[in-house]
Amino acid sequence: MTSDTRFQARQLPHGLADLFYEQAAIKTELESRLQDTFRGWGYQRIITPTFEYDTTLSTEASPQLAEEMYRLIDREGRILALRPDMTVPTARVVGTRLYDQTLPLRFYYVGSVFRYDEEPQAGRRREFTQAGIELVGAGTPEADAEVVAVAIGALEAMEVPRFQINLGQVGFLKAILADAGGGIRLENGDLRRVEAAVHRKNDRALRDILDELHITGRTADAVAAIPYLCGDVAVLDEARHLATNAEATAAVERLAAVYELLDRAGVADRVSLDLGEVRSMAYYTGISFHGYAAGLGFDVCSGGRYDGLISHFGADLPAVGFALGVERCMLVAQVQCSVAPQVVVQGSANAAAHHLAALARARGLRVEMDVMGRTGDALIAYGRERGARYIITPLTDGRYRLIATDGERTLRRGALEKEIATWIP
Amino acid sequence: MTSDTRFQARQLPHGLADLFYEQAAIKTELESRLQDTFRGWGYQRIITPTFEYDTTLSTEASPQLAEEMYRLIDREGRILALRPDMTVPTARVVGTRLYDQTLPLRFYYVGSVFRYDEEPQAGRRREFTQAGIELVGAGTPEADAEVVAVAIGALEAMEVPRFQINLGQVGFLKAILADAGGGIRLENGDLRRVEAAVHRKNDRALRDILDELHITGRTADAVAAIPYLCGDVAVLDEARHLATNAEATAAVERLAAVYELLDRAGVADRVSLDLGEVRSMAYYTGISFHGYAAGLGFDVCSGGRYDGLISHFGADLPAVGFALGVERCMLVAQVQCSVAPQVVVQGSANAAAHHLAALARARGLRVEMDVMGRTGDALIAYGRERGARYIITPLTDGRYRLIATDGERTLRRGALEKEIATWIP
Repeated sequence: MTSDTRFQARQLPHGLADLFYEQAAIKTELESRLQDTFRGWGYQRIITPTFEYDTTLSTEASPQLAEEMYRLIDREGRILALRPDMTVPTARVVGTRLYDQTLPLRFYYVGSVFRYDEEPQAGRRREFTQAGIELVGAGTPEADAEVVAVAIGALEAMEVPRFQINLGQVGFLKAILADAGGGIRLENGDLRRVEAAVHRKNDRALRDILDELHITGRTADAVAAIPYLCGDVAVLDEARHLATNAEATAAVERLAAVYELLDRAGVADRVSLDLGEVRSMAYYTGISFHGYAAGLGFDVCSGGRYDGLISHFGADLPAVGFALGVERCMLVAQVQCSVAPQVVVQGSANAAAHHLAALARARGLRVEMDVMGRTGDALIAYGRERGARYIITPLTDGRYRLIATDGERTLRRGALEKEIATWIP
Repeated sequence: MTSDTRFQARQLPHGLADLFYEQAAIKTELESRLQDTFRGWGYQRIITPTFEYDTTLSTEASPQLAEEMYRLIDREGRILALRPDMTVPTARVVGTRLYDQTLPLRFYYVGSVFRYDEEPQAGRRREFTQAGIELVGAGTPEADAEVVAVAIGALEAMEVPRFQINLGQVGFLKAILADAGGGIRLENGDLRRVEAAVHRKNDRALRDILDELHITGRTADAVAAIPYLCGDVAVLDEARHLATNAEATAAVERLAAVYELLDRAGVADRVSLDLGEVRSMAYYTGISFHGYAAGLGFDVCSGGRYDGLISHFGADLPAVGFALGVERCMLVAQVQCSVAPQVVVQGSANAAAHHLAALARARGLRVEMDVMGRTGDALIAYGRERGARYIITPLTDGRYRLIATDGERTLRRGALEKEIATWIP
């Protein structure tokens, strides 16, 4: 091994991280709460491979996402890629294997995704964990609203404080642009440039792009107004006035219907309307949303409707979903986890000590048995350093010393068993 | 897209699998039980990246494992690899970042590992999930015994029926071979060939290899006897007689001490001694074990002591651990999981219906709200098809129809809320 490879062996590549102690426990706890939330809404887990054919994962990927994918060549010479999201693999499974099921299908996922990011920063890693849902087979506003409501429930379950969902509709901008220059069809790259300028609320860049594309008159005015169509329900009336064709009007009415349903579901106070919410996956076709938490400079979740994606793999089914970034949520979630042992027991050669440890474990407690040969005061010092609530050491007369945070007692085995039966995690 | 790539887009590469419905739920449940078991013994989770530098992951890898690793080149031209196990990454974290902690360290992991297998079969996939533990900093028989006991506890927690741990000691064969031909040092490849012949109980191949290596006399007789040193505690006496040097004797006594501790821990009935248990990771230095379940032609878990590995990354710490294959355990585990909705509720435009659904969710039930516009009999038929225990539809007079498996009632909202408060998952 050269000194360079020896150095490399001890390092992680840039943009990757190890988690242990409390951070690993918090991530595990958040994933558990997310799964409980998703299952509570009737979603079932789907688990797809970490990598698959590049051609699968590139389906309808934006140029940026396609650029960010990690690729490898398998031994048969085919190009594989690490999944950059979970929506496309889920669409593959649904389109190829589950097309004949009673609808709707409700799936959730939680797992690593991979994106090569030139300059990874806080909350932006090259491997990160996405958790989310896909609601397949329902093209209704009720389905759109459910996905937004589940996203809100997921953020609440993680104790993310002060968050907001910005809810938009990619169909509105697309419908208006469909009129552009007498109905010319915008190439995907041009649409992306318009969307980017709208998203950044960059008026000048937006006007320049519209001029360049020869988009003028009412159409140009409507597009230029979109970045400012954000706020409460009054935004919908402004959008209705700006709508330049029936399709644009329908897009606004759909958004209005979803917002009304979210109000009935009691979560509208978490939702801000934002027609400028157009930055999205290339496959989105309807509502689109991002979630933001106070104090973070990037979104914690995003989602939208993607009615055309699944048909690439087989059945033509409408779908809507969202994904959240677990590591990003960890930056603001107020969940705390204790990882220290709650009970420390001396004597792994002592059969009764094993029995007592098992009793405490059955109560849900974290129990360490000594394996270092620590006895008496050394074990007690160790247990206290680790923050254990209870330390148990066997005495030579068959009784046990129980050192608890509130004092010390000597107990017979039967009495100690009764005591343990009252302990709670 | 060519027809070939279109076909590829719908397929998974060989040796990979999608899991959904009950299979995904069972995997999730097993992983949850495993984590509860590990935490109960005081182990804390460690999460390392899916890929890292090849030089890290290749540390002390056997030639076969090195051959089976999936590699990719990052954009800086460095060779990365998908992790083939979790022990080496954990050793890296411990050796480089946790060398100054109070010992022992107890870590558990659960996650995907990747091995290119020429002909993947049942229970052998190119991506599979390993769950396991590493107990670091304790070089004692107590530590060895704890890891075996946790493995037994993990298999029991998954309801794997009729399993057995074959417990051996790679140090015994290595110590005897150290005498070979007047103390010549066996090259790693030769040691591997001897180990393979011992493992397969192939007497003829073993004798041929010993002849070829000029190993004769008591040493050859001892090696040739090893494949048959399996069974109960009487095996230890046979091994004591065969021991050709002090190191071999010490290896037997260490195994005897571990077995005695497992007896005290009340789990010796699960353990069979097997000095022929020498097929192992290249970095094992002491005890070594595999777990087998009745009816499966391959092991479900394996582990051992690896005292030299962590020093490659920094601190020189003894360690012992084990890993189990979650998908393999799924083939025999008797856990069943229901995934169907337990409650189906009509009316996502009805604020009270949202409230009722939330109440049932808070009780831990899986609750689907209709998003397909199903009402009345259509909703009831859907709920019954899905196996729901309760179906709730609002009536026009403000009351609710509750269709349960044991009959139907019409209730006011308050009465229905009281009813829901009694439901259990």
